[in-house]
This record gives sequence, C-alpha cells and structure tokens, in this order.
Amino acid sequence: MKIIYDCMGADLGAKEIIKGIDQYLSEASLKGYLVGDLKEIEVSLKEFPKVKENFEIIPTTEVIYNDENPAFAIKRKPDSSIVKGYQLLVEKKADGFLSAGSTGGLLAGGLFILGRIHGIERPALPVVLPSAKGNFILIDSGANMDCSTKQLISFAKMGKVYAEKILGRENPKVGLLNVGMEPGKGNTQVKEAYKAFQEENFNFIGNIEARDLLIDPVDIVVADGFIGNIILKNIEGNGMFMLGYLKKLVEKFSDGDQEFVDKSNIVLKELIKLLDFAEYGGTSLLGLKAPVIKAHGSSNAKAIKNATLQMAKYLEQDLVRIFENEFKGE
Amino acid sequence: MKIIYDCMGADLGAKEIIKGIDQYLSEASLKGYLVGDLKEIEVSLKEFPKVKENFEIIPTTEVIYNDENPAFAIKRKPDSSIVKGYQLLVEKKADGFLSAGSTGGLLAGGLFILGRIHGIERPALPVVLPSAKGNFILIDSGANMDCSTKQLISFAKMGKVYAEKILGRENPKVGLLNVGMEPGKGNTQVKEAYKAFQEENFNFIGNIEARDLLIDPVDIVVADGFIGNIILKNIEGNGMFMLGYLKKLVEKFSDGDQEFVDKSNIVLKELIKLLDFAEYGGTSLLGLKAPVIKAHGSSNAKAIKNATLQMAKYLEQDLVRIFENEFKGE
Repeated sequence: MKIIYDCMGADLGAKEIIKGIDQYLSEASLKGYLVGDLKEIEVSLKEFPKVKENFEIIPTTEVIYNDENPAFAIKRKPDSSIVKGYQLLVEKKADGFLSAGSTGGLLAGGLFILGRIHGIERPALPVVLPSAKGNFILIDSGANMDCSTKQLISFAKMGKVYAEKILGRENPKVGLLNVGMEPGKGNTQVKEAYKAFQEENFNFIGNIEARDLLIDPVDIVVADGFIGNIILKNIEGNGMFMLGYLKKLVEKFSDGDQEFVDKSNIVLKELIKLLDFAEYGGTSLLGLKAPVIKAHGSSNAKAIKNATLQMAKYLEQDLVRIFENEFKGE
Repeated sequence: MKIIYDCMGADLGAKEIIKGIDQYLSEASLKGYLVGDLKEIEVSLKEFPKVKENFEIIPTTEVIYNDENPAFAIKRKPDSSIVKGYQLLVEKKADGFLSAGSTGGLLAGGLFILGRIHGIERPALPVVLPSAKGNFILIDSGANMDCSTKQLISFAKMGKVYAEKILGRENPKVGLLNVGMEPGKGNTQVKEAYKAFQEENFNFIGNIEARDLLIDPVDIVVADGFIGNIILKNIEGNGMFMLGYLKKLVEKFSDGDQEFVDKSNIVLKELIKLLDFAEYGGTSLLGLKAPVIKAHGSSNAKAIKNATLQMAKYLEQDLVRIFENEFKGE
C-alpha cells in the first residue's frame, strides 16, 4: 500500500502523523509520500528512521486553514499540502490520500483536482458513531450544507456500500433522520426524500428520531451535511458536558472517600474512550475518484494509525470500483 | 389566576394532571376548567376535593392524538379537549391554557382558533436547557419545520423577551446554531439569517457551534424548528445512552463493592435529575394571542405543578402585551 500523507494542518503537527505511520509500520508494510514543510518533516523524521526509509518528502510552502474559503484557497495556494497531495493522487503515484487538515480544503480539492465518480453529484462524509446496540453510520456528517433529494439518495447508496464492505453488515437498514417516526413528519426536504427513498432498492425502514440515534439506530442514518454536522458536534459536546458534570458530582458525593473517587475515575475514563471519536480513525470522503480519508484535526498517533488501517480496508474492498458500478447508470 | 387544563392526551392520564393542580393549590390559589372525558375526570377528582371545589368540568368526547394531521384534526374534532380548551380561552373565560396533549394539535389550534399576535408569522416553542454555565433558551424547539429569515428573526425577538422576563437576563446574547463559528459557514438559510440578524437591534453575537451548546452557550440559541427539535431529542437520547453505558461500567468495575455501587447510584440519580426535562415544567407557545403552555407528554404531577408556576410567571410578566408592542410595527 502506498499512501500520501498531508503533514500540515493537524493540531499536533507533522511529528504526530509520522509517529502514527511508524506505529502502522511496526505491524504492516507501507510506503508513500509525506507532503508539507520540509524542515518540520525532516526534524520529525529523526526519531522514526523506518518512516524515513519508506517515505519520500514532497516539500510545500503553503497551508490551507480551516477559516479560509476552501474553493478560493485551493486556487490561490497551488503549493499547499492539500493541492500537492491531490496532484500526486491524480498522477496515480499512490493508492490514497490521508489528511488531518482542513475538511473544507480537502473537499474542495477532491471536487476540483481529483474529481467525482460519474453519477455522484457530491462526495459525502460518513461517520461511524457508537450506540447502545453497536455502531452505525451517519451520512453526511458535514460535506454538504444544502442537499437535494437526489443527493440524499446517493448518500444512502454510498452508506449502504460502506456498511456492507467496511462494517460487514448484511442488507443494512437505512433510516432518515427526522423529528418523528411517522411518515409525513419533518420539513419539506425530508418529506420529499421519504417518498423518493421508498422507490429505491436499498432497505429503507423509514424515519429515525434523534432520540433513538444512540439508543436503537439503524445501520445507516441519512441526513444533510448541515444537520449531520450539528448532530455530530452536539454528541461530542453533550459528552463533554456530562463528563464535566459527573466529575463535579463524584467530588461532591465522595465525602473524602478516595477509593470511590479512584474507581469513579476508572469508569469516567472508559466513558471518555467511548466518546473519543479520534480513536475511531478517520472519515472517508466517499464519491471521489480515489480513496481520500480525513482524520480528525486533533488526531494523535493512534488515530493516524487507525485511519491508515481504515484506508487499507477501503483499498482492499475497492470501494471506488463498487461506486463506479453502482452509479454508472445515473 | 384562572387556567384551562386539557385533561386528555397526557401519558399518565387526567388524574396526574389533577394531582399536579392539587400540589399547586396547596401553595397558591388557582381556579379554572378541567376539559376532557367526564367520567375520567370525575373519578380522578374523588381524591382531590380542593381541585373539585375550584374547578369546573367541561366534558368532551374527542381527543387529538400525536399521529394525526393536526390541522385536519382541529377541524374534524370539534368536541376535542384542545378545541374546547381554546374556545374557552377565546371567550376569555380564563387567563391561559395548559395541555400535555398533542403538540401539533395545540399548535394548530393556536393558529386556527386562538390566532397569532399581529406581526408574528408563526408561533414558536422555546425550550430552556441546562448548560455548564447555567441554562439557556433554544428557540424554536419544534413548532416550525421550514423557516424563513423573517421567522427566525421573530424567534430571536421572542426569545429575547422570554430571556429577560422569565429568566431575568439583562441584554441577553443571541446566537445562531451553526456548523462553525465563522460568518459564512452553514447552509443557505443560516447564511441569510446571519446577515439579517446583524441589522436587528438585539444583541447578536454570531454563530454558535453545536459542540458548545451545553458547554458555553449564549442566552438564546436560534434554530429552525426542524433542527431545534432534532437537537432537543438528541440531547435527551444522548443522556439516556450515556446513563445506560455508565450503569454497565459501574457494574463492571464494582468488583462486588456495594458501597461503590450505592454511591455511584446517587451520582447517576443526580445526572438523571439534570436530564429530566419534564421537571422543568412546560414549553410556552410564544406568539399567540393568549398564554398557552405545552407540558411534556410524560409529565408527572410535579411537572404539571411546575408548568402552572411557569404560567403564573408568564401572566405576571404579561408577555402577550410585550409581544404586541414589540411586533406592532411589522
């Protein structure tokens, strides 16, 4: 496997990305490119000779940041790590591209440099979330702010393939995120989508209420990227809020009982693990002509390793080929 | 204070509503009407002579359910408790109307029987939610599925009055629920609203990310009712999910230490209290010509008492009059 790593734009810097690659390398073979600031990469590589041996540095001088207009940034920063990374991918120098940088930049680069698979109007970002009954896919988690019915259908189709090939689900259930279970509930967009979904040949089971999302979800929950992203961030925020509240409660009710505090801390650490989406690896940008994975901006080495494992699975299952077949008639 | 109580459509039946009225009556005076099935109300009143003394029964034979089309139901069920309740309100037989029945039915009745305050296109449902820094208002929490910019502005204005008069905030901050903090983020609806909000004379501080909602929110978070309702239900669901997970963790790590289990249960009970929105009372339908409060469908007696306290505050502050002044130029 040959992967292009964007070494810029991640919260913890290039070294953490390289450390993650090193962790992967201790278990499996991997080659590829490190794209980014030459000095930072060279300094970071000193501790990781195995990565140095297997990777080529592609020096760049620009970075696309989260607060930039992504479409402009892609055009105005030709020497950015995201643009250079995509160019290597277009030239088929590697099998996939992995970045912990700007999501918007990665999406814009995907659209303007790499390109979409025929029949897919917009790439989508699925995210795998935990629930009381195992994990599930929320798609789109933030790539598309205003979505047509056709786009929502394509999210469901891509989510289905992802659930089958990556999560190993058989005949996965598709649900529409809504304010109620009953047909006819919701806004204009969702009501239209409900009708259209009934005509499709995936396993559409109807609306799913936000209350049930983490309790008893279906395999694939479809939402437009605006709502999907708000839900994703709300789940993260709720977790942090409850954790903070629990810590205060434990302190309040401990009565100086250190054993209780210690045991409670073990419990809370497990809860943090569950809520730590960074551990889950990355998010695939589905619908592009080659595999692209977006790791969380705050990814640590373990998250980068997990995202690389995800890339391996993506390639092994050849999702791009499957999508090409699925959408060729559109 | 004279209040009309809808005794139908609540999960726990008429008796729980009457019990809640009785609890309120033990602290303050209250008169009014009990609207609903004659037999059920009469049987329920046996245990509560004080309520019987102060309330008149208005017998009805029909109920509007949650799974009905609300606008049709209002027209087809003239002898329903919601329709009769609103008619009493229109006839000025009481100061306000309180129901734990169908939200849709209550909204439709508000629009078609009671009517809106001049200048307010759509009534809105604010909900008061807990956060790490105190509580805040989310408006709209589910009354309006597709919202124009003008409607979002009216939600902000009504939310401002509510924050000032009911929560006692000075110059309360207004934020727009969005996927990011930066201006220019979000879908078409929110981008348009952002620009329009800047021209208004309330204290608009910009976008608020869903991640910060329960951590560091503003006083009033504005969203359309589709997203607001999804967020509200997601918060409830996340709480239940985390609670279930914590219970399992406590069991797993207790190692037979009963003291730890007992203390943890105290902590979890406090967490349940925080998450129990039913305790917070009801939600006001803002923008109608008279005070209407929707209590949670699963309200117990305490929630009905709290909703009644909320009605008292609503009347004391004369919100309807304030809204009439605020919107008269529109």
